[in-house]
Amino acid sequence: MELPKGVEWAAHALVVLEVAAGRAVSSVGLARTFDLSPTYLNKHLQKLAAAGIVTSTAGATGGFRLTRPAADVSLGDVVAALGSATPLFQCSEIRCQGAFAEQKQQILASGLCSINQAMLRAEDAWRSSLAGTSIADLAYGLDDNTRTRMLRATGLGPDTDKDPS
Amino acid sequence: MELPKGVEWAAHALVVLEVAAGRAVSSVGLARTFDLSPTYLNKHLQKLAAAGIVTSTAGATGGFRLTRPAADVSLGDVVAALGSATPLFQCSEIRCQGAFAEQKQQILASGLCSINQAMLRAEDAWRSSLAGTSIADLAYGLDDNTRTRMLRATGLGPDTDKDPS
Repeated sequence: MELPKGVEWAAHALVVLEVAAGRAVSSVGLARTFDLSPTYLNKHLQKLAAAGIVTSTAGATGGFRLTRPAADVSLGDVVAALGSATPLFQCSEIRCQGAFAEQKQQILASGLCSINQAMLRAEDAWRSSLAGTSIADLAYGLDDNTRTRMLRATGLGPDTDKDPS
Repeated sequence: MELPKGVEWAAHALVVLEVAAGRAVSSVGLARTFDLSPTYLNKHLQKLAAAGIVTSTAGATGGFRLTRPAADVSLGDVVAALGSATPLFQCSEIRCQGAFAEQKQQILASGLCSINQAMLRAEDAWRSSLAGTSIADLAYGLDDNTRTRMLRATGLGPDTDKDPS
């Protein structure tokens, strides 16, 4: 069981959009920054757009932008947007089968299965932790060299051949 | 992304083994209790055996037993035994690609990617929560009627036709 690979790509792309500080970045520019497939990255970006995290504009100067401050976009939002919003544990209520089939209605009325409860508690802990890290937190630690390389790769400049390192 | 279905089956089977209080229960008896496929349940039980959580004995009175007190078997152990011991988030180090390829060694030497760190923190929270619920905790809340139905379905008795409900 693994999170979709797109989570990593989407999180890094969102950090670049934060570094771009409101300027639109094309999916090609984002893909070039990390040498990713533009086609696949664009699919992940479309999921972020569907979740309202980014917006895109067409045209030569178009591209993707964050729709809200990066401090308000958490890794939990990214995981949910990339398709992992459903519970990790899927209870199929086997507690109501076999020797317990005739008591099914009583059992269901008694509340969630204790195994499901424990699994949901654990998942709450996971999602709460993910909600505690924002794209702004992730961008905050980047040094100038990294920011410069990001901006240059996206095509936003600075337009210089000088090695930023 | 979902946990393997076997996690639910294995957790319920372990609760039955705790109710059996040290007596061996066959995989057929465990499967009958919840109307599960004996073949698939046996595969999951073999994974629990490989992880050292249960042991099996052959013969007419053979079957599965817990190898240690149920208080020392957590849902985290079950999830790990069923094949989800690898991290949920698999970092592929895209931070070292594209515009950053020539700095790869420096970047890797600087420590884990901050996105991976946040993902691992969240996963620690998940696994810690799972570690906090034991099979003994899950069995503790079962009423006498449920315990009787379990034991009867496994073939351990009590040998009566009286409806336990």
